[in-house]
Amino acid sequence: MRTIRVHLGKRSYPIYIGSRLLGQTGRIVRSLSLGDCAYIVTNARIKRRYGRALATSLQRSKVTVAWALVGDTEQSKSLAQAARLITGILKNCRSRRVFIVALGGGVIGDLAGFVAAVYKRGVPYIQIPTTLLAQVDSSIGGKTALDLPVGKNLIGVFYQPRLVICDTNAITSLPLRQIIAGMAEIIKYAVICDPIFFKFLEKKYPQILAKDQGTLAQVVSRCASIKARIVERDEQETRGLRTILNFGHTLGHAIETAGGYRRLNHGEAVALGMVMAVDIGVRLRMMPKGEAIRIERLLKSCGATVQMRGVSLSKVLRAYVHDKKFVGRKNKFVLLRGIGKAVVRENIPLGLIADVVRGRS
Amino acid sequence: MRTIRVHLGKRSYPIYIGSRLLGQTGRIVRSLSLGDCAYIVTNARIKRRYGRALATSLQRSKVTVAWALVGDTEQSKSLAQAARLITGILKNCRSRRVFIVALGGGVIGDLAGFVAAVYKRGVPYIQIPTTLLAQVDSSIGGKTALDLPVGKNLIGVFYQPRLVICDTNAITSLPLRQIIAGMAEIIKYAVICDPIFFKFLEKKYPQILAKDQGTLAQVVSRCASIKARIVERDEQETRGLRTILNFGHTLGHAIETAGGYRRLNHGEAVALGMVMAVDIGVRLRMMPKGEAIRIERLLKSCGATVQMRGVSLSKVLRAYVHDKKFVGRKNKFVLLRGIGKAVVRENIPLGLIADVVRGRS
Repeated sequence: MRTIRVHLGKRSYPIYIGSRLLGQTGRIVRSLSLGDCAYIVTNARIKRRYGRALATSLQRSKVTVAWALVGDTEQSKSLAQAARLITGILKNCRSRRVFIVALGGGVIGDLAGFVAAVYKRGVPYIQIPTTLLAQVDSSIGGKTALDLPVGKNLIGVFYQPRLVICDTNAITSLPLRQIIAGMAEIIKYAVICDPIFFKFLEKKYPQILAKDQGTLAQVVSRCASIKARIVERDEQETRGLRTILNFGHTLGHAIETAGGYRRLNHGEAVALGMVMAVDIGVRLRMMPKGEAIRIERLLKSCGATVQMRGVSLSKVLRAYVHDKKFVGRKNKFVLLRGIGKAVVRENIPLGLIADVVRGRS
Repeated sequence: MRTIRVHLGKRSYPIYIGSRLLGQTGRIVRSLSLGDCAYIVTNARIKRRYGRALATSLQRSKVTVAWALVGDTEQSKSLAQAARLITGILKNCRSRRVFIVALGGGVIGDLAGFVAAVYKRGVPYIQIPTTLLAQVDSSIGGKTALDLPVGKNLIGVFYQPRLVICDTNAITSLPLRQIIAGMAEIIKYAVICDPIFFKFLEKKYPQILAKDQGTLAQVVSRCASIKARIVERDEQETRGLRTILNFGHTLGHAIETAGGYRRLNHGEAVALGMVMAVDIGVRLRMMPKGEAIRIERLLKSCGATVQMRGVSLSKVLRAYVHDKKFVGRKNKFVLLRGIGKAVVRENIPLGLIADVVRGRS
């Protein structure tokens, strides 16, 4: 088992990474004395697969277990679902010290984290991410979010979990498409700040795609550690340091929106956003062509799509202009000066952006 | 103008107290550079009365103004209203740096504060409380809250405003019933920690009821200062220090719930809760009878009811047992050892509580 600590003063917490950690949840939770009623937010499929192991572990540590099942899709990130979950907590854990368990991918983490943040002005929660994407990204850092009909992630707060448990064994049951989505975020960490990790990925990506437990633990640890260090320096995204984590996300979000969140999943859209951000860097002569080629090659080797299909160019540009990051009529892009060297640039000409998006259409 | 600062590190903020401050809002907001679009949450009545003065002041300081009108009652503290307000921000202030203005009483402050806390993970907000109760209590300290059909204030976060402006001139237009409600909270501050202030109130209450501006500014400042000092030491109610602010609120809330939030307003219920808490203290021989009599006399002089009418005893006791503060099967009461000496006591016998409530029925 590997341990990474996120240092945030009174809000510090550990991330545990390893194979078959789920069964140790009860013991860990008890050592942190988080409460005596676990309200587990998950979906039916994940509950079938891991429900018994998790419940047994918690009950052995004298923690009562209550389940809240939500749908698997982005539609679950609604205020109505949050209200349903809170009503469920009152029904199931009223007179107990409750803590919330987010067992699942990013959608479940965002929703359960939000509920924990706002129920009676905050109760503890823990993240047990079951997708590769959630293990390396969304489970760490305390971002919670809900959608409104008018836009994604418009509602949320920063609220740190008390514990993250990344059981790499959960990755083995994921479909390849989700592994690829996770790989896109993993490659993101390497290209924004860790050239050695990038070389490691160039060499070891076949083992990751083959779900080798040891390699997965190494990779998840490295990513968790990078994210932890950035979050520590800029917990609430006020200092601009956390911004570099958005590499590939500016156009990535626009592509997701333009595709109606169905054509492409988050990781696929981010992979496309990254090659476009790399293209912008090359066009601005900020980064060597050779490094751009290496990034694109690694993404392709890992199964990512680097050509946009079935999503309209004009829709992407429209979504981009309306993005929440495009505030005060200035745009902001995370670009690369090379592998491992992310920089934030403002006022990239809209014509250049359109050109680059067109080049990948 | 009096100034009180709430010292909370990076989240510190000033409270300005004085007559006719509303017209200075623009200047103050600009000096804090909170944003360039003010989204003002209020109700139709308050907008009619103060809308023009506030808007003119903001516009003179180059701040765009957008209005969101909500109903006057507790029903406005819903997730649906929060969603409606956020959609309104997007429509009116999309490409600008928005900040939220809570112009009104406690309901508006709770709702607008919550919206500010969760919209894009937090935008600045300011409180301009227009009731005496909100000026001395709810506008300070960063508690935000929404209700669910299953219970009041179940949803919320701690989120500090960037500025509080208490214009004592707003008090002059309040009906007497709301002045009395405010007086109950004012007397609360005195009895929990300030015997000198209690003596001041015994002498000066007629001037307060007569809405004398100078006396009002003195009283609001004193209360704001007491609340600020307590909030500074226990921002998120984790250290138990903020608990003493709940004096009179444990049974007060139960009385409000039992009356369906219609028979009695918050201040009236708190006044009743306070005399009951005093009664418990006397019954436990914790406090001198003479001081209990002085507290009851002052409350009555200020127009508060000290006898419960039209609310059923059994409903109050049931609501009390289900209260959120009654967690883990222990009860917790703020009691007095004398005027100015609040203490927290646990496990007060239910029989004694029932006796005391019966005695005031």
